[in-house]
Amino acid sequence: MPTTIASDQPLLTLVNTFTVEPERQQELVRLLIEATELVMRRLPGFVSANIHRGLDGTHVANYAQWRSREDFEAMLRNPEAKEHMGRAAAIARFEPLLYEVVETIGG
Amino acid sequence: MPTTIASDQPLLTLVNTFTVEPERQQELVRLLIEATELVMRRLPGFVSANIHRGLDGTHVANYAQWRSREDFEAMLRNPEAKEHMGRAAAIARFEPLLYEVVETIGG
Repeated sequence: MPTTIASDQPLLTLVNTFTVEPERQQELVRLLIEATELVMRRLPGFVSANIHRGLDGTHVANYAQWRSREDFEAMLRNPEAKEHMGRAAAIARFEPLLYEVVETIGG
Repeated sequence: MPTTIASDQPLLTLVNTFTVEPERQQELVRLLIEATELVMRRLPGFVSANIHRGLDGTHVANYAQWRSREDFEAMLRNPEAKEHMGRAAAIARFEPLLYEVVETIGG
């Protein structure tokens, strides 16, 4: 199902931007898809994850939606999630930031 | 209309993350909405912009979709768009990065 961005959804948005060596970009993309399929999507409050490949070769972004901050923080403490995040941290730098949608224009 | 994220759309995605002083976060949010409403949405190839407020108070993100790289680059050369980007640059640091959607999970 496609992901929907709208300002009236009761959601927390995680935008996690990864910086990676070009020769490991594809490996990171696969790792994030695998982590989402095997772990994240089974956790309470998971809504969506959208994995993006940077056209510059050195970035990957995950635009993810969670039901609440509590669900997101519980994920951060989950041992399986932590293991996957550790594997990402071994090959990339990343900056996970939490947002709320203020305005959607166009679409 | 809500924005849709899906891997089968012929789109270019811009994720622009802004870092700003907390006391200017709301001003930056307003500036980006105004720039989108007055300028960006009228340019060829504009699909959507989604303005996000960082829960930490010091970030703002724009998740924007353009039809093609050519349309996006034409926007960067547009004098009105440049004026709005200059106003954002006066109060925030930002990193605009171009992506393609690889995978959408959940939704």
